[in-house]
Amino acid sequence: MQNTQYDFGLIGLGVMGRNFILNVADHGFSAFGYDLDREKVDALKEEGGDLNRVDATQDLATFVQALGSPRKIMLLVPAGKIVDQVIDQLLPHLDQGDIIIDGGNSFFTDTDRRDAYLSEKGIHFFGSGVSGGAKGARRGPSIMPGGNREAYEHVRPIFEAVAAKFQGEPCVAYLGPKSAGNYVKMVHNGIEYAMMQLTSEVYDLLHRGAGLSNDELHQVFDSWNKGRLQSFLVEITAEIFLKEDELGNGRLVDMILDKAKQKGTGKWTSQNAMDLGIPVPTIDMAVSMREISALKADREKADALYSHPEMPALDKEELISLSEQALYFAFIISYTQGLHQLAAASKEYGYELNLSQIAKIWRAGCIIRAGLLTDIAEAFEAKPELENLLLAPGFVEKVQGTLDAVRKTTQLAIAGGIAMPGLLTTISYFDAFSSGRLPLNLIQAQRDHFGSHTYERIDREGIFHTEW
Amino acid sequence: MQNTQYDFGLIGLGVMGRNFILNVADHGFSAFGYDLDREKVDALKEEGGDLNRVDATQDLATFVQALGSPRKIMLLVPAGKIVDQVIDQLLPHLDQGDIIIDGGNSFFTDTDRRDAYLSEKGIHFFGSGVSGGAKGARRGPSIMPGGNREAYEHVRPIFEAVAAKFQGEPCVAYLGPKSAGNYVKMVHNGIEYAMMQLTSEVYDLLHRGAGLSNDELHQVFDSWNKGRLQSFLVEITAEIFLKEDELGNGRLVDMILDKAKQKGTGKWTSQNAMDLGIPVPTIDMAVSMREISALKADREKADALYSHPEMPALDKEELISLSEQALYFAFIISYTQGLHQLAAASKEYGYELNLSQIAKIWRAGCIIRAGLLTDIAEAFEAKPELENLLLAPGFVEKVQGTLDAVRKTTQLAIAGGIAMPGLLTTISYFDAFSSGRLPLNLIQAQRDHFGSHTYERIDREGIFHTEW
Repeated sequence: MQNTQYDFGLIGLGVMGRNFILNVADHGFSAFGYDLDREKVDALKEEGGDLNRVDATQDLATFVQALGSPRKIMLLVPAGKIVDQVIDQLLPHLDQGDIIIDGGNSFFTDTDRRDAYLSEKGIHFFGSGVSGGAKGARRGPSIMPGGNREAYEHVRPIFEAVAAKFQGEPCVAYLGPKSAGNYVKMVHNGIEYAMMQLTSEVYDLLHRGAGLSNDELHQVFDSWNKGRLQSFLVEITAEIFLKEDELGNGRLVDMILDKAKQKGTGKWTSQNAMDLGIPVPTIDMAVSMREISALKADREKADALYSHPEMPALDKEELISLSEQALYFAFIISYTQGLHQLAAASKEYGYELNLSQIAKIWRAGCIIRAGLLTDIAEAFEAKPELENLLLAPGFVEKVQGTLDAVRKTTQLAIAGGIAMPGLLTTISYFDAFSSGRLPLNLIQAQRDHFGSHTYERIDREGIFHTEW
Repeated sequence: MQNTQYDFGLIGLGVMGRNFILNVADHGFSAFGYDLDREKVDALKEEGGDLNRVDATQDLATFVQALGSPRKIMLLVPAGKIVDQVIDQLLPHLDQGDIIIDGGNSFFTDTDRRDAYLSEKGIHFFGSGVSGGAKGARRGPSIMPGGNREAYEHVRPIFEAVAAKFQGEPCVAYLGPKSAGNYVKMVHNGIEYAMMQLTSEVYDLLHRGAGLSNDELHQVFDSWNKGRLQSFLVEITAEIFLKEDELGNGRLVDMILDKAKQKGTGKWTSQNAMDLGIPVPTIDMAVSMREISALKADREKADALYSHPEMPALDKEELISLSEQALYFAFIISYTQGLHQLAAASKEYGYELNLSQIAKIWRAGCIIRAGLLTDIAEAFEAKPELENLLLAPGFVEKVQGTLDAVRKTTQLAIAGGIAMPGLLTTISYFDAFSSGRLPLNLIQAQRDHFGSHTYERIDREGIFHTEW
């Protein structure tokens, strides 16, 4: 069994870890797993047995000694203190030039701290976001690595082999130094929050507002997935409407409680965007909606206290068409906001991100994969300094074409009392971003009035203050 | 001149500090100022000379020796490292039981850190937000102190004397331990951001959407300020529309650049609300809008790239009435969100806040003072455990009565391409919060589908997972 030249090591043999290691072995690399939990070690040995190049152990020294030099050790353990603990346990066993890869959703400043700590000891550290869930880990995830560029060459053959492929191109690329990979993955998740919220709002409008059945909803989302809305989230949404409740109450989706949980990456995206001064209100609102969803008891009280408007009579076919356009518009703006944040983060943190490349590695394997990303990759390839997608020539036409439908859809939702906070936020963002003149001159006047905070003028340079 | 029993000391003799110390002296207390800047020291001596109980120095030892025991020393210096530096300079001169009051907008965790540091040395520390700008500091601000309850008794007579009065009641109260005061002031500022954004949106709708002149706008806001919208911000907005440009270009408001700055307290409010899991989307959007306003060059590009809808023909009088109702609705919800955050922060950080008392001390002196706060104070007095104002009996009627107008106003704005992000966010928040059933069951289904994140059910307890 002992092979002192295993190509790849993996710590943390939960579902993600086991699937990732089997994926590595599928592509001809030998891989060794480590976990404290005997059951997990045995499960991997059993599943990987046929491959003859997978082994696992509960003993850290055995694990480290089995790896070829430089060691490539990936951690798939919960983000937080456990990552630091594992690193400190590993360190005495490692040699200069060895590589540790953190595959979890670590907060980017933690990655920078670990990178600095390990650099001093001659160890290379990669924060590498992995998206695609358990299935992605097994059959091809999108991988977002950041760290030392030269050291990445040791990891690259394995990552390129195991990553999802889009028309033959692997959905992995070296993204930048330090925490670039974790940062990109964080924003990926922020965009994911926005797209999920928007999808749920359109579902609500069609279901609660216009009475579409689950079968009809399946058909709608399935047909959308064959058009310009083609995406993983629309695809699985179509599937979800068909799933029967195993406990015999019709469709499962109707039996699920409307309290959405979160693990923090969406929140981090919003909080850090505020530090950067970049507006990502659709992501902010998706975070708020998860919070509001959790206030179920208060919502039920408020529902009973307030009277609700009647939904206007709607032509189903027209509403389906309006919804498709609105969702397309809002998906574009979700990517727009996230990529705008990445452009700013790249400058602020010195990541030197290539936004076209990022759009490319999101085209397969990850949760936000969508046909749209091909267009987005092209827009940033044509104009790498582009910061906001709404200014890209190809996107002006796409967005302009949806605006009438977006305005109709949002007005219907407001009239009918169907909450579409993500979509309303998104049209607000668009209308504000495309207004050469906004009324925030009044805010500057107020600030100067009560706090002497000064203002600028439209007709000359300088800083001015008035005794109001 | 030397008086070894000065009642009050103040460090930082900028406009706020000078005005605050003169306010203290106006009320019969002797007060001593300290600043490194000779001009500021001289300015205070000159302005305070007639009072015979104000002095100032550039020498720290002289300053500290002049104060009666226990010393009460207020800092009005910029938030951040300077506060720590001043504290460290003061410490060798202080005795056990002396009191330091930080009157700036310090971040609340900094206050907790300083409180712990100074407690060890037997010094009492008060983070005390002060709102009201330079005029408030001189004539009566709203003061929000937090710290040691017993030590507050030494400060109370002075603070109650100098604070703004609402029908004779001073707008200051002991709010809670540690950083309670700074936290309340932070959220005060978050509400302020929301109210300013909302005011500017209504201005835009009336001005750009319906062509109201500055004189007409003055009349509208002035009449609103005599009704249920009575508030400092509506009052100064009415004044702003009348101010002539001293450089001869008509009204000054039209010459002010529409790029609004921020100093961070609104952002902190939003970021910390996310940590608490409390939705404050109207505040979030106000922060986003300051960011979008700063992207002036991009906005001008986008303005030229996209075609804009025509504003529907509007009856001015009707639109003024709709706007009044919309602004009243949105002001209520701005307070609702901020107070909801305070209720959660009180539990999380052990502040034991009295929300009715907080509403009361905001009724005069501060930037968000408004007639509405009397109703809000009553609602929380009647039901101290109330977390969300939308559930307060008296508010259901107030809010319900505005909803038709809010729906009309937001639909008009969307149809006309006038960005009203704050108002749209606010109706979204209302519609979501008053929906017993939200479509986030779909989000839970998606999360379980791609990430095995599990879900709850509507018909039984427990955590469930499905192989989709």
